[in-house]
Amino acid sequence: MANLEAHLRVPGPTPLPDPVREAGAWQMVNHRGPEFAALMARVVPALRRGFRTAGDVVLVGTSGTGGLEAAVVNHLSPGDPVLAVTTGAFGDRFAKIASRYGADVTLLEVEWGRAAEPEAVRGALAAMQTAGRSPVAVLLTHNETSTGVTNPIGPLAAVVRATAPAALLLVDAISGLGAVPFDTDGWGLDVVITGSQKSWMVPPGLAMLSVSPRAWAAAERATMPRFYFDLKAHREAAEKGSTPWTPPVSVCFQLDVALGLIEQEGYPAVFARHAACGAATRAGLRSLGFDLFADPAHASDTVTAARVPADLDWKRFSADLRARGLTLAGGQGKLTGQVFRVGHLGYVTVHQILAALEIVEAALAAAGRPVDRGAALVAASRAADRAAAQVAEQATGPTIETTGAAGGTEVQA
Amino acid sequence: MANLEAHLRVPGPTPLPDPVREAGAWQMVNHRGPEFAALMARVVPALRRGFRTAGDVVLVGTSGTGGLEAAVVNHLSPGDPVLAVTTGAFGDRFAKIASRYGADVTLLEVEWGRAAEPEAVRGALAAMQTAGRSPVAVLLTHNETSTGVTNPIGPLAAVVRATAPAALLLVDAISGLGAVPFDTDGWGLDVVITGSQKSWMVPPGLAMLSVSPRAWAAAERATMPRFYFDLKAHREAAEKGSTPWTPPVSVCFQLDVALGLIEQEGYPAVFARHAACGAATRAGLRSLGFDLFADPAHASDTVTAARVPADLDWKRFSADLRARGLTLAGGQGKLTGQVFRVGHLGYVTVHQILAALEIVEAALAAAGRPVDRGAALVAASRAADRAAAQVAEQATGPTIETTGAAGGTEVQA
Repeated sequence: MANLEAHLRVPGPTPLPDPVREAGAWQMVNHRGPEFAALMARVVPALRRGFRTAGDVVLVGTSGTGGLEAAVVNHLSPGDPVLAVTTGAFGDRFAKIASRYGADVTLLEVEWGRAAEPEAVRGALAAMQTAGRSPVAVLLTHNETSTGVTNPIGPLAAVVRATAPAALLLVDAISGLGAVPFDTDGWGLDVVITGSQKSWMVPPGLAMLSVSPRAWAAAERATMPRFYFDLKAHREAAEKGSTPWTPPVSVCFQLDVALGLIEQEGYPAVFARHAACGAATRAGLRSLGFDLFADPAHASDTVTAARVPADLDWKRFSADLRARGLTLAGGQGKLTGQVFRVGHLGYVTVHQILAALEIVEAALAAAGRPVDRGAALVAASRAADRAAAQVAEQATGPTIETTGAAGGTEVQA
Repeated sequence: MANLEAHLRVPGPTPLPDPVREAGAWQMVNHRGPEFAALMARVVPALRRGFRTAGDVVLVGTSGTGGLEAAVVNHLSPGDPVLAVTTGAFGDRFAKIASRYGADVTLLEVEWGRAAEPEAVRGALAAMQTAGRSPVAVLLTHNETSTGVTNPIGPLAAVVRATAPAALLLVDAISGLGAVPFDTDGWGLDVVITGSQKSWMVPPGLAMLSVSPRAWAAAERATMPRFYFDLKAHREAAEKGSTPWTPPVSVCFQLDVALGLIEQEGYPAVFARHAACGAATRAGLRSLGFDLFADPAHASDTVTAARVPADLDWKRFSADLRARGLTLAGGQGKLTGQVFRVGHLGYVTVHQILAALEIVEAALAAAGRPVDRGAALVAASRAADRAAAQVAEQATGPTIETTGAAGGTEVQA
């Protein structure tokens, strides 16, 4: 590496704090022994606090995509009508998995860059009901990583609960949960999926899923085939402090350490940090002349997508950024070549965002583009201040609820 | 830990050499970037040398069990007649996965502790053919971890090829490949599965599968549902130096380092080391008065199962071993409580086996059982010498073939 610093600013894997890195080097233990059972006894309750659920949380040795598959195959049967609300490449993937296993999927496709609207979901549900195809499940994406949009899961879930009370709510929260306020039980969500390499500051290798009592009941009836992803086998093994198949032990060590760091910081501070980093990123990129892709009202605090200017050779520019120590992500699916993405989730601070913006600014200047050197940093740091103040103000409002768990968790209405 | 040393002698996860441990602490990289592509360009050819195949080898972020599922769902369709040859708990699991996805499974159940015999397989195939149910695939287990038996895959495969030439050979080589001679292409195997946490000296998290051209052709026709485990998606991503879903990046780092260590040692030396450790374990346990579970003609050089004496309280004894720094594995499935198992695969030396035997000896003496202190160590070290001499003698025979790859690979007929 030619640079002293490496800035990995993709929306996962995210950088690892040193204590998490170091736990990756620990010697193996028996995954059926007392050390691993003690780890599970720490990690599972900590995840319950992170998800805000009193229900089960299971660990599956897989990526986020495998977690989506687990959510589908455990709770649905071939032929089941399903409403898939998709706002980007990951919403499409969730729907595709359900189709692949034989669900009868109705797509509610939202224009990429926009959030799903509760009224549109209500309409889609009503249309399915009128057609005699009441949905068995609704698939939602919390944070759409391909577009940088955070969907309003609370209001969306409320509409589903009111319109189709029997439908299960399966929610891809892979790239948002742990970074922004989220309330699994308060919103009545049945299965929520996240991945270790996102807000949790851990290498990839683990999907974590919450499962509601309603979802467990559905699993008893669901006939899609499953073995590795059988969540019931995971629940049974977890009762003995283990997993049904050999888990990625070192990633579990790292998750244990990372959850300790997160609870030490406290979820309110974690959420405020992400709000500040998201605001700083957006303000900095706008100051540099980039058009942001997402509807500003639903801009994600974990990933920002910006349009690649027509006269910028992205391939060359991104290679120059890499040479300067900054790795960004390109566009996905139909946005390939059209947008680039900055990840700001997990182990991220405003200082790191300022460094990334400084590198982009320098690369733009080197490419001969008009740049007011330092202006993006001013814009970003001011936006971070404003976001932090706003969060602090919300935190003094009346809607706060704090649990007693290490560091406390908090939800903002 | 009360002990200065920890001896993890279970059949996976295996201990990690220090360079492999340390690679687990490396900072994340973009799994779609040039660093990861460079890693894939080293790891995949190294695995090909380890498997002895010119075909494709794919990495899937899952456990060995997930690897078995991938082998089944990519190459079979519901209703396909399948012969599952099972010699223990893992053979049963492979068959169960095929049944779960709708294959029409015929079980050839071999008494636990014995190896599968080619003639029995020939008979089972012929019976299926006579019944008009020619098998689409035969499921074999190379090293049965639950019983400590290594099945003779070469002769078994030859019988399948001769009797049912169209049948795919799907082979669970999870706990043997990389530790004992194995010849994927020479034996005509279609899909071979192994796991990172076994002979490869890497934490769990990755299954590695070889796929023959015949198996790829079958995948085009196979209709069992798959998404995460879709091997074709893995092959396509591998062509771009990546994986279709986010891989367990730190485990990939560790596999890269471990393959380097293995090729530096050289497969002939690795095989000789496992032969010596297997012989030492068996001789030491016999010297301590234990009955070994496996047919001596097919005793595994990666795991040894021994019967728990009727008058030994295994639970208490194994807790005492743990207090002394030694972790062994109990019995699995119907052998729970009846056998214990010693893992000797991956990062293992004869010295480590001697240490483990010394701890067992001391614990037996402490339990008031008659022990000739040191006798097991004498027996073990002499057996290791004999095994090493035998391997060296074989290595001077005429059947050796060496490839030019780093360190060379070798097969012993």
